[in-house]
Amino acid sequence: MNYLSLGKDELLQKKEQLQKEYDGFKARGLQLNMARGKPCKEQLDLSMPMLEILHSKAGMTASTGEDCRNYGLTDGLPEMKALFAQMMEVEPENVIVGGNSSLNMMFDTVSCAMTHGFGGCTPWGKQATIKFLCPAPGYDRHFAVSQYFGMEMIPIEMTPQGPDMDAVEKWVKDPQVKGIWCVPKYSNPQGYTYSDETVRRFAALEPAAADFRIFWDNAYCVHELTDTPDVLLSLWDECKKVHHEDLAIFFASTSKITFPGAGVAALAASEANLKVIREHLSFQTIGPDKLNQLRHIYYLADMDGVHLQMERHRQILEPKFATVISKLESQLGGTGIASWTNPKGGYFVSVDVLEGCAKRVVELCKNAGVVLTGAGATYPYGKDPADSNIRVAPTYPPVEELEVAMDLFCLSVQLAAVEKLLKA
Amino acid sequence: MNYLSLGKDELLQKKEQLQKEYDGFKARGLQLNMARGKPCKEQLDLSMPMLEILHSKAGMTASTGEDCRNYGLTDGLPEMKALFAQMMEVEPENVIVGGNSSLNMMFDTVSCAMTHGFGGCTPWGKQATIKFLCPAPGYDRHFAVSQYFGMEMIPIEMTPQGPDMDAVEKWVKDPQVKGIWCVPKYSNPQGYTYSDETVRRFAALEPAAADFRIFWDNAYCVHELTDTPDVLLSLWDECKKVHHEDLAIFFASTSKITFPGAGVAALAASEANLKVIREHLSFQTIGPDKLNQLRHIYYLADMDGVHLQMERHRQILEPKFATVISKLESQLGGTGIASWTNPKGGYFVSVDVLEGCAKRVVELCKNAGVVLTGAGATYPYGKDPADSNIRVAPTYPPVEELEVAMDLFCLSVQLAAVEKLLKA
Repeated sequence: MNYLSLGKDELLQKKEQLQKEYDGFKARGLQLNMARGKPCKEQLDLSMPMLEILHSKAGMTASTGEDCRNYGLTDGLPEMKALFAQMMEVEPENVIVGGNSSLNMMFDTVSCAMTHGFGGCTPWGKQATIKFLCPAPGYDRHFAVSQYFGMEMIPIEMTPQGPDMDAVEKWVKDPQVKGIWCVPKYSNPQGYTYSDETVRRFAALEPAAADFRIFWDNAYCVHELTDTPDVLLSLWDECKKVHHEDLAIFFASTSKITFPGAGVAALAASEANLKVIREHLSFQTIGPDKLNQLRHIYYLADMDGVHLQMERHRQILEPKFATVISKLESQLGGTGIASWTNPKGGYFVSVDVLEGCAKRVVELCKNAGVVLTGAGATYPYGKDPADSNIRVAPTYPPVEELEVAMDLFCLSVQLAAVEKLLKA
Repeated sequence: MNYLSLGKDELLQKKEQLQKEYDGFKARGLQLNMARGKPCKEQLDLSMPMLEILHSKAGMTASTGEDCRNYGLTDGLPEMKALFAQMMEVEPENVIVGGNSSLNMMFDTVSCAMTHGFGGCTPWGKQATIKFLCPAPGYDRHFAVSQYFGMEMIPIEMTPQGPDMDAVEKWVKDPQVKGIWCVPKYSNPQGYTYSDETVRRFAALEPAAADFRIFWDNAYCVHELTDTPDVLLSLWDECKKVHHEDLAIFFASTSKITFPGAGVAALAASEANLKVIREHLSFQTIGPDKLNQLRHIYYLADMDGVHLQMERHRQILEPKFATVISKLESQLGGTGIASWTNPKGGYFVSVDVLEGCAKRVVELCKNAGVVLTGAGATYPYGKDPADSNIRVAPTYPPVEELEVAMDLFCLSVQLAAVEKLLKA
């Protein structure tokens, strides 16, 4: 039944029925959360053996001969660099292994650009206006970093092939445009993977600003949900082909491979970029937690180990994503009031509801006990101009809770749509 | 025998004899390092049980009920805050627990002041000149942070009671003076503990700049070497008494309690300062490594546990410090060419050699295979105006190596002195 073809009486009747169902949900006193891309307890349990893996004194030594318990190795363990290099499809010598958070490494890289600058340019903080391109919908914490540092954020439309590259190519002609936030594989929130053409066009960019940098946050590089994974072209390889090595800085972490709070993060960059970042790091810290790196190396060992671990995650996550998609299809399919993505990996499903209805859907869900990501959160300044995008995060709740939450969600989408159509 | 009273012939004779001894050392091909305040292997072995302490799933929950393996708790675990509060003599609600490095927290606090400012003032990075007071000799990495951010460093003379407070009180009248680096207990490198009067005068400071902050790096707060420890007055308590809560930011870590690379760091500050720091943190990261905090809580438990652990460290370190002091006394006592501190805790012994001789001593040692902290490193810009201070770090080498290294050191001090006296 397509809601858009209903007359006023039918809508009124539908509203009454939906409201009754909604009141039923409210009476249940639910307390469910689909707000953040948090792994669930079963996923965390997977990595428990890693916590017991460091026990013999003999095992405390890195391949460099250094005692991992002591100070030193600001760049991280060579063996951890090698693993990240494979994961990120770069060379080990381009990798810096950091602490427990890739967001922290991105923030610090931006902070470094603010106070010290890239490419020999004036620090961003001493330039009049700094603009950042923000493919939207996108990751709220990326946008928040830009906002914290007072940048002007330029929304770039997302397509199933990645950011609208015509717009990106146009905007980088502006010398005030200094960077772009990208989640190139299984993008947050839509789960889109940038096409080969998109990656090549990124590599070919000729920005007016010598200190323009692509922040390539490959957060979901090995986070598959199917047997036919999306394949992302290596931006690093493409940049090398056209001698644009300084254009991009790459980020990844094991936050959603091992433990969200106790994983290991890394960045990769060209020699010139590394020089700036390493100098920053050399003043900022004496070194990262190398014991946690050692734990990861012993536990994951190599890419086979990573893929095996991700397969275990998939066993837990696949039914959750299937639940979300099947609820959306069965309850909103053909209604004309919602569309959604069906990603092959990553952590989110993106739902677009009728224009002007996203806030209301989130509110309806909240009032009946289900917390969603705030409407608008996926857009710069937290403002979705169409008020239509909602990020659904299926990973944390158990399937049975997810079913209830999605029932309420689908109901709320319908109720909000009917309310809107009645007002029109 | 006092070298200063020797005539030229005696000096020449002495030089020949010292040179012969020195050549003997050179022939031994030593490879020893007393450069940094690194714990030794035996100290690291002490904390091995901590690495096996996390094993049951039940034990993964913080006192808040949150799963420490997941995202969240940006401020750190309440139980870890409570422990640091006791260690730092502040209230738990004023503590933020961070990652593995207090240097990192200090750097980030300065960086935050550069880009966002404290006390509602213009960010330091947008003010024309930022000056920082640097009690010298002091910790080279503190000074390096100031230098990295382009601050003008003002050396403040250290006394056995702490920094020259007359100079500090004079300098803070300059509104461009924004802070001071302090290691108030067992200072780096002299091992001095600030007197009660010094702490009270710090608390009573009325800086011209509303964004002036004392960086109180209490790195050696529980790092005792004797049964009669120095007692440091609580700057936090003194600040509260005179309603100067915003004046100081406090830092500490377990780097030299458990593992240097895999410890836990913390800062403490007033509500107003925390507001600025928490905002910064909320954009920078989703949270610290809470599993490592949990490990520390299970292992150390409380202040009794901390003191017990420090007692174990002392068993290892006391003989090393005794070796250094006894070598200095037996070989340089009464020579008139060197003086040194005899600290009751901390990580260093500070030696002052004849003016103009520190670089030469470090060079002589290096050429014979013993690496010392670079001469001048303990001063802003790496420049000791008198070229006389040398930091000796006795913790890392085994006692037998330390004996050889100190023999060479004492010999080098004499040789450099004789060279200088012959030129005079």
